[in-house]
Amino acid sequence: VTLTSDLCTQVAELACRPLPPSVAAHAARTLFNVIGTAIGASHSDEVDILLRHAAAHGGLATAPVLGRAERVDPLNAAVIAGAAAHYDDFDDTHLETVIHPGAATMGALLGASAGRAVAGADALTAFALGVETQLRIGLAISPTHYDDGWHITGTCGPIGAAVTTGLVLGLDVEGLRNAVGIAASQSLGLREAFGTHTKPFHPGKAAANGLLAGLLAAEGMTAPEDALEADRGFAAVLGRESPQKLIDLIGGLGDTWELERNAFKPYPCGIVSHPCIDAAVALHHRIGGGRIASVVLRCHPLVPELTGNPDPEDGLQARFSTVHGVAAGLADGVVGLAQYADTRVRAGDLVALRACTRLVADESIDRDAATVEVEMEDGVSFTEHVEHARGSLDRPFTDAELDAKVAALVEPVLPGHWKSIRTAVDGLHSDRPLTELIECCLPEGARS
Amino acid sequence: VTLTSDLCTQVAELACRPLPPSVAAHAARTLFNVIGTAIGASHSDEVDILLRHAAAHGGLATAPVLGRAERVDPLNAAVIAGAAAHYDDFDDTHLETVIHPGAATMGALLGASAGRAVAGADALTAFALGVETQLRIGLAISPTHYDDGWHITGTCGPIGAAVTTGLVLGLDVEGLRNAVGIAASQSLGLREAFGTHTKPFHPGKAAANGLLAGLLAAEGMTAPEDALEADRGFAAVLGRESPQKLIDLIGGLGDTWELERNAFKPYPCGIVSHPCIDAAVALHHRIGGGRIASVVLRCHPLVPELTGNPDPEDGLQARFSTVHGVAAGLADGVVGLAQYADTRVRAGDLVALRACTRLVADESIDRDAATVEVEMEDGVSFTEHVEHARGSLDRPFTDAELDAKVAALVEPVLPGHWKSIRTAVDGLHSDRPLTELIECCLPEGARS
Repeated sequence: VTLTSDLCTQVAELACRPLPPSVAAHAARTLFNVIGTAIGASHSDEVDILLRHAAAHGGLATAPVLGRAERVDPLNAAVIAGAAAHYDDFDDTHLETVIHPGAATMGALLGASAGRAVAGADALTAFALGVETQLRIGLAISPTHYDDGWHITGTCGPIGAAVTTGLVLGLDVEGLRNAVGIAASQSLGLREAFGTHTKPFHPGKAAANGLLAGLLAAEGMTAPEDALEADRGFAAVLGRESPQKLIDLIGGLGDTWELERNAFKPYPCGIVSHPCIDAAVALHHRIGGGRIASVVLRCHPLVPELTGNPDPEDGLQARFSTVHGVAAGLADGVVGLAQYADTRVRAGDLVALRACTRLVADESIDRDAATVEVEMEDGVSFTEHVEHARGSLDRPFTDAELDAKVAALVEPVLPGHWKSIRTAVDGLHSDRPLTELIECCLPEGARS
Repeated sequence: VTLTSDLCTQVAELACRPLPPSVAAHAARTLFNVIGTAIGASHSDEVDILLRHAAAHGGLATAPVLGRAERVDPLNAAVIAGAAAHYDDFDDTHLETVIHPGAATMGALLGASAGRAVAGADALTAFALGVETQLRIGLAISPTHYDDGWHITGTCGPIGAAVTTGLVLGLDVEGLRNAVGIAASQSLGLREAFGTHTKPFHPGKAAANGLLAGLLAAEGMTAPEDALEADRGFAAVLGRESPQKLIDLIGGLGDTWELERNAFKPYPCGIVSHPCIDAAVALHHRIGGGRIASVVLRCHPLVPELTGNPDPEDGLQARFSTVHGVAAGLADGVVGLAQYADTRVRAGDLVALRACTRLVADESIDRDAATVEVEMEDGVSFTEHVEHARGSLDRPFTDAELDAKVAALVEPVLPGHWKSIRTAVDGLHSDRPLTELIECCLPEGARS
């Protein structure tokens, strides 16, 4: 028995049992959050690009596009949902691996369930196990994998998407194992793509690659039995960790859930910026209307490495600029999608604030902490220390915060819908059909 | 100016000039060869699987499937053509990188040209530059990239496919650069997949990923400007070679052509087996009908590493078993597709011959050389040394050998067609339209 087989056997067994209540609840929150970000970005330039492509080259339009009236084929639906959910860098993060698991998994769920009657509880379980599998595989190759330049959301995403797809399609263990193997060979995502359309494309394509893997496995395509653990398999080729980590990851499956360590983003930008932005928002209220002379950000070394852009030119680049998030927080007292609009990014007050802000990397500062020091033109200075960022594991989003986030994303696109989406997500566990949730995510005229 | 931009500028300039005659001739031979292998495998189980998938999920059926009457959408056409061309491990090899460049590039050409009038010379140039680009990028990350477990045909293939697509679509330099960037982030292929359907799927998916990259770039999708050379770009993440190699690869573009070092396979199996098989075929004629007691293969260390399977169970596994190829050569005196049929692989005489054959790795033996020693039951022994394998750079295929190979592949599928395919390939350079060639590759009833 290979490790890959063993994983798939365990996944198949877990899929036959109800999820533990706390896991079901967090899976529902995870799904609710990425549905929100997907609807929020449903009219972005990237979704328009992908829709034009799907209209020209796609297949039978049996699958929905959240937030829009168009329908597309399942594979393009997976690409679009995954890309939209990640587009604003506003989705979710499993901090230990830096995987954003919801987007690709939700994309695969949407594509795989097109034209099928999927019971809510089954959909939620397939989603939860797709997230859980990719997080555990991600742990087994972390931290070297991400350090080496891989966008781990794109590399582990296809495997999670294949698991979700395989469960929705009802594949047996051998089918699941082939789906995982085909997906493991279709990993993608260079970190260099950050700041371009290609970055959100990664979880979209991950969703589609995993969905394709499941569909081809269902048709009889074969893959190596030991795709994950073999000498030239996924973990060895894409990571530099000990093989024991991969064995360990299978061990506790179903006992503990990495899914519960998936956190939701309060700000639409790289998560390492968040503690600095928390501090900036707090300082906005303390400094009042005074003129700022300089700002120093003391932060974990990953901050300059991942989000060190000192002067972004548009909203996409600004997502990788901690100094922009801080400038916006100091100036506006709130950091949402509006602060990442191209026009706001280029506004004179923020250009000036960014120019007088300095990043100082400090090994002694945790990843979810930061200290921001502001010196005013009149010589007065303010310091704000954040011990744990909002939305981090030690300061998790409350249900009310998550509702407010999703409501703000959904309201401009589908006014009045957010509450029915929330109700439908909650209903999955008590077995309301998945379609009921999907219908709530579409404009009135587009419902079937 | 980034290196990636510079590459695309040079590619765009080369595409405006006629190919040097020797390059055009070798590009045509390369195309002819993979058209032959694609038609040869057009009724394989893998093509059936991919066709069922395309029928269920594919888009508007505007593109052909070589050797068959079905039509599919361009992206599925690219997958199927690339997978079919590589299915029998009978296509081509650029030995220094171990890239099989024809399959993915031909797949992209077929998909990109669907529904377009493409002049023959333009098609040949787009194909040649797609091959050339992926070979040079492959050189820049060799040998560590393949050593690390990547199926380099799947990783460099998307970039070549994107170049071919971009040229067929007429993208400008910026569009080409985005296409290359989107493709660079969609690399795929674990070597662990060898011996399963997933291996030939790699060049198929590489073709489709590159085609998709070109189509999305045409719609305005952005990618990093320095996708190839950046710190977290293609070469750094997927290889461990010096960055200077990447700079060098751009240098001589158009002056020398790696394309001319692409060799065609005489036997449908891993290329490192070929010198041993040459020797076995020669020994078949020397030993007559005597009974063999034992066989020793002295060969390059890559032979046991890549094709060390001692007792394959089917034709796919047999492709990675040098002892099988040798057993077939000794027993049958010829090694073609028939010797890799599942029933022949499982035949008692070959099982017995494989069981008494031993691989001995020897660092002092070149990759295209081998020595085979046979000891007969009556105590007589024979030794055959091969200095350069058939089809290697030092003993290249003649036109007659290539014709014979393609004829043998095409004849069972499209009787009488091989000669018109050869004429149409030769006609590309004198600007007969690409469709003329494609029509020759379809059954009579399927022509448009």
